Amino acid sequence: MTKNNFSVLSVPLLSQARDTSRAVLGSVAKRHMGEKGYLLFSQNDAADWFYVIESGWVKLFSETIDGDDVILDLMTRGDIFGETTYFYNKSYPFNAEIVEQAVFWMIPTSWIEAEIKSHPPFAIAMMHHMSHLKFSRDKQIEHHTLQDASQRLGCFLLRLNRGEERGAVNLILPVDKYLIANYLGMKPETLSRALSKLSQELGVLVDGINIHVPSFQALITYTCRTCSDVFPCQDRAV
Amino acid sequence: MTKNNFSVLSVPLLSQARDTSRAVLGSVAKRHMGEKGYLLFSQNDAADWFYVIESGWVKLFSETIDGDDVILDLMTRGDIFGETTYFYNKSYPFNAEIVEQAVFWMIPTSWIEAEIKSHPPFAIAMMHHMSHLKFSRDKQIEHHTLQDASQRLGCFLLRLNRGEERGAVNLILPVDKYLIANYLGMKPETLSRALSKLSQELGVLVDGINIHVPSFQALITYTCRTCSDVFPCQDRAV
Repeated sequence: MTKNNFSVLSVPLLSQARDTSRAVLGSVAKRHMGEKGYLLFSQNDAADWFYVIESGWVKLFSETIDGDDVILDLMTRGDIFGETTYFYNKSYPFNAEIVEQAVFWMIPTSWIEAEIKSHPPFAIAMMHHMSHLKFSRDKQIEHHTLQDASQRLGCFLLRLNRGEERGAVNLILPVDKYLIANYLGMKPETLSRALSKLSQELGVLVDGINIHVPSFQALITYTCRTCSDVFPCQDRAV
Repeated sequence: MTKNNFSVLSVPLLSQARDTSRAVLGSVAKRHMGEKGYLLFSQNDAADWFYVIESGWVKLFSETIDGDDVILDLMTRGDIFGETTYFYNKSYPFNAEIVEQAVFWMIPTSWIEAEIKSHPPFAIAMMHHMSHLKFSRDKQIEHHTLQDASQRLGCFLLRLNRGEERGAVNLILPVDKYLIANYLGMKPETLSRALSKLSQELGVLVDGINIHVPSFQALITYTCRTCSDVFPCQDRAV
């Protein structure tokens, strides 16, 4: 279960399984590669697998009866999804599609079920994980309501940088801008205006997918004053 | 733990505790009454208690550094909150305040912790409950992005009616309109326009806090076509 310097056990939740279960994980986890546009699963499919991303990007999204879609999450290296679906009627409550070529691991939900049932500390770790997921959604709702478009984009950029830098930072937009706009609940033209505002307010420079933030600390101050959390965000701690 | 024809064991999650634990619950659950404006707890307080509402309304809300607030949930009879906070750094990630005079029960989180640790089926029930909470938040995010103001209000009205009627239904707005507007992520004047639109489109009649819906089925059709779920909503099933 380790390839290219990546291990599914780097996911904090999975690292808390017993040694024997970690060994089982190594034999049941399957590594795959998928191209942009590949649908991993659809809403209401049987939730037989959960996923860990080694590289690339995946969108989790829902579709309405009218055919519109909403991106609920954009996930990348080290992220896990589908792990809570066993408890949701044993079916996926959303769709998952690769949006940038991805290498990913599929693990049977029966593995997580067995570990939860036989190892209470792992069950507690799972609940800790789920409470953080819910809190992450609370933050998204808060931001949809209170942040303007430039602050929502600022929050997205802050979360792209998993390092400790507070000075100048160079970032790369990892997926198409229209996907980022959808995820942030805005139209593509609103995203363009939000980028312009960050340029005016904070001197952020945009060149295609390359973003230069002259002061990461200034971006934190600008964005996080409209949030009830402080940076680095607590909901990303697990 | 039963007063005025209400039992905390009517909460689906708590009904799944063992008989012996249900008896303990009866001795540790404390019944209180609180007036509008009473703060039950603040963000970051130690999560020593969780709550079940017997009557009245409570808002769960977060406050930003700038002093703005967002209502994350409006809760009433039979609803439970604070039950997942034990797993969130053992502190509350939001505030809770009574918005309409409420009778509520406080139960030590140590009770839920003990039941989870000693009774695996209850731990599984808890995870089922948490996965539905997360899905409920996914729905809110979807609605913030895709529904117009009249559909978000329509969704709120649909959820007020816990019965099976599909014809004419009379509803009462349970809390101040500005609270409903905040919860739905809109300004009070937008809520007024949304009510007008529901009147034009569906013949909904508004008289102060009294709402007459001539066809509940028509309101479902109007609202739920912009949702990935079907009515009655699955996230309300637990």
